Amino acid sequence: MWETNYLNNLRTETPGCQHKIHLNNAGASLMPAPVIDAISEYLQLESITGGYETANMRQKSIHEAYVNMANLLNTKAKNIAFTASATDSFFRAISSIAFKQGDILLTTNDDYVSNQITFLIWQKRFGLQLVRVPNEPGGGLDLDAMEQAIKKYRPKIVSVTHVPTNSGLVQPVEEVGRMCRENDIIYLVDGCQSIGQLALDVEKIHCDFLSGTSRKFLRGPRGMGFLYVSDRILEKGYEPLMLDMRGADWTSENEYQSHSDARRFELWENSYALVLGMGAAAKYAYEIGMDNIEARVKKLADYTRKALFEIHGVKVLDQGKELCGIVVSQIEGWDRAKFKPLLDEKNINTSISDGDSAQTSFAKRGIEWGLRISPHYYEYGRGN
Amino acid sequence: MWETNYLNNLRTETPGCQHKIHLNNAGASLMPAPVIDAISEYLQLESITGGYETANMRQKSIHEAYVNMANLLNTKAKNIAFTASATDSFFRAISSIAFKQGDILLTTNDDYVSNQITFLIWQKRFGLQLVRVPNEPGGGLDLDAMEQAIKKYRPKIVSVTHVPTNSGLVQPVEEVGRMCRENDIIYLVDGCQSIGQLALDVEKIHCDFLSGTSRKFLRGPRGMGFLYVSDRILEKGYEPLMLDMRGADWTSENEYQSHSDARRFELWENSYALVLGMGAAAKYAYEIGMDNIEARVKKLADYTRKALFEIHGVKVLDQGKELCGIVVSQIEGWDRAKFKPLLDEKNINTSISDGDSAQTSFAKRGIEWGLRISPHYYEYGRGN
Repeated sequence: MWETNYLNNLRTETPGCQHKIHLNNAGASLMPAPVIDAISEYLQLESITGGYETANMRQKSIHEAYVNMANLLNTKAKNIAFTASATDSFFRAISSIAFKQGDILLTTNDDYVSNQITFLIWQKRFGLQLVRVPNEPGGGLDLDAMEQAIKKYRPKIVSVTHVPTNSGLVQPVEEVGRMCRENDIIYLVDGCQSIGQLALDVEKIHCDFLSGTSRKFLRGPRGMGFLYVSDRILEKGYEPLMLDMRGADWTSENEYQSHSDARRFELWENSYALVLGMGAAAKYAYEIGMDNIEARVKKLADYTRKALFEIHGVKVLDQGKELCGIVVSQIEGWDRAKFKPLLDEKNINTSISDGDSAQTSFAKRGIEWGLRISPHYYEYGRGN
Repeated sequence: MWETNYLNNLRTETPGCQHKIHLNNAGASLMPAPVIDAISEYLQLESITGGYETANMRQKSIHEAYVNMANLLNTKAKNIAFTASATDSFFRAISSIAFKQGDILLTTNDDYVSNQITFLIWQKRFGLQLVRVPNEPGGGLDLDAMEQAIKKYRPKIVSVTHVPTNSGLVQPVEEVGRMCRENDIIYLVDGCQSIGQLALDVEKIHCDFLSGTSRKFLRGPRGMGFLYVSDRILEKGYEPLMLDMRGADWTSENEYQSHSDARRFELWENSYALVLGMGAAAKYAYEIGMDNIEARVKKLADYTRKALFEIHGVKVLDQGKELCGIVVSQIEGWDRAKFKPLLDEKNINTSISDGDSAQTSFAKRGIEWGLRISPHYYEYGRGN
């Protein structure tokens, strides 16, 4: 699969590869040419034809973006909503649950900072109770503890970040999905860092919601997200608080009727240029094959961990049974403000993970900052 | 100001003018070249440099987009939040109020359909009570009735759509602002259809929130909106339910601290290409001058109304003391499905207003559909 010729073709389709060694795919990836072209071509058409007129003309292409996204998750177009970001998707999912005072949300210690802030404001405003299930000693969610917590607390919802932003950890989302289904609990998976790097199958995960972004490993444009919504949620009538004329019809002065598909979780206004860009990114990943991508990303990350391990004063922080394409390490004796610019100068893109944005993971372990290296399949590894 | 030479220069900067007579600016306008260029140039830079890396490099330009938007509203950059749409902005504003069962939201009969659906779901979920102030017999909000309603109901918030989507009406938002300030009521103005066609001054309007979009009369890209947030709201600590690491810092396991400026109402992820496009659109409008734009749009719309008045079987529906750039008319004896394609064939962009999306305005008046004509300053009028 990953012969040098094939890889070089993919690199040729990635203009950024000519300029940078891009190891910041967990921040935002480099868009391939089909993504850039889809956006540019649509914007040009809008500028000469009009925004609404272009959307009417290109209805078929817009629908294909939903199909492409659905294919990547093993679901149907009607279960996909497009949003402005993963956080936006996550919020719309959470907001569809009419929490009562004292309702419990069960999560992990590695859930994403923005989700944590969302939980806390819902706690403050609506009395939602937040319970975090402990990790195993070696890192990663303790599944026995999760099962016990589900039985003990009977949470209204379980929310798990598939791949935390500050570590290479892959959480066992399928096992948690089985528990939620058996106990009839709503299950929300944040796939922000897994979409585009790991093969995701919403049927296997058994989730009710899966939120994600376009810009990271999926290689789509910034400012776009998606939300998978299960048939179960749609049939039971869950509605996001952000409901407008896209998600519902205003049927009489004091009544509305929300739509039967995942469009219910969308808003009327969209940048269709970005929708098509995201659809092109999903198609691009699907055609390479998510199993192939996952294998290569894991291989490159393993290689990176091994290489870092051999450097004196560098400590790889990733913990857990299964690791993926995010590698975070502590660099002894360096100030974060001085270290990253050295890499920037060499045209190597990376990012810094802060303790402040990881109160329940980094901060607990006394870690101030880490260097985050997140390679994608289009980078050369040892051999190619 | 509007000599033919000047107008022709503006038209040359608008590629769509070569192909279409665009009378659908209340749907989405035609972007001028500086907007298209700002977006394209930024996307190209992202594709060769990386999404996060480009945002770091272009911090100054991104800040200027806030300044440009603030200038247009006579406020400061720190009072501007960028969002994905006007509805998104509107929702974030509403969500910052911790409504209690029975709290009253006072609005009009001409408020936008998506706002109405939002009110209804908040009514259903949180027991918010919706009260609509009646119109004057000749159309437009009855100011005496509004003042009485404010005193009678002591609403938690007053929400007024400045220019309804289905008529040329301009609501008296400054007068309502004075009443709200005198009675210490939170005041939200939906400026979705007024931004870019009317001169807006948040100090004169005395509003706490003003929401708006990029794609309509402002001539920016689709998929972008803004929210003005007053110092009063910021100082009193109102926080949107959609709060993430852009709007707040996670300070310890169970605490967060929201930011002091309008960034509190933003989410972390943005398409900065679209942010710059919107900033360029704001600058473009500011440089032409909002007073000049307002005068010309009103003149073109008046001319349109007069021309329609002379056609047998056509009835102009716009009602109210002050009218602007949206002209809606009933066309006797025509089916909506047959009429608009005739205009499309002649390369004239317009739109159809439905009774279904106007339950408290059209539906009450027994109107099934209307042809909406919304010219912008760059179209030729009588004379030029």
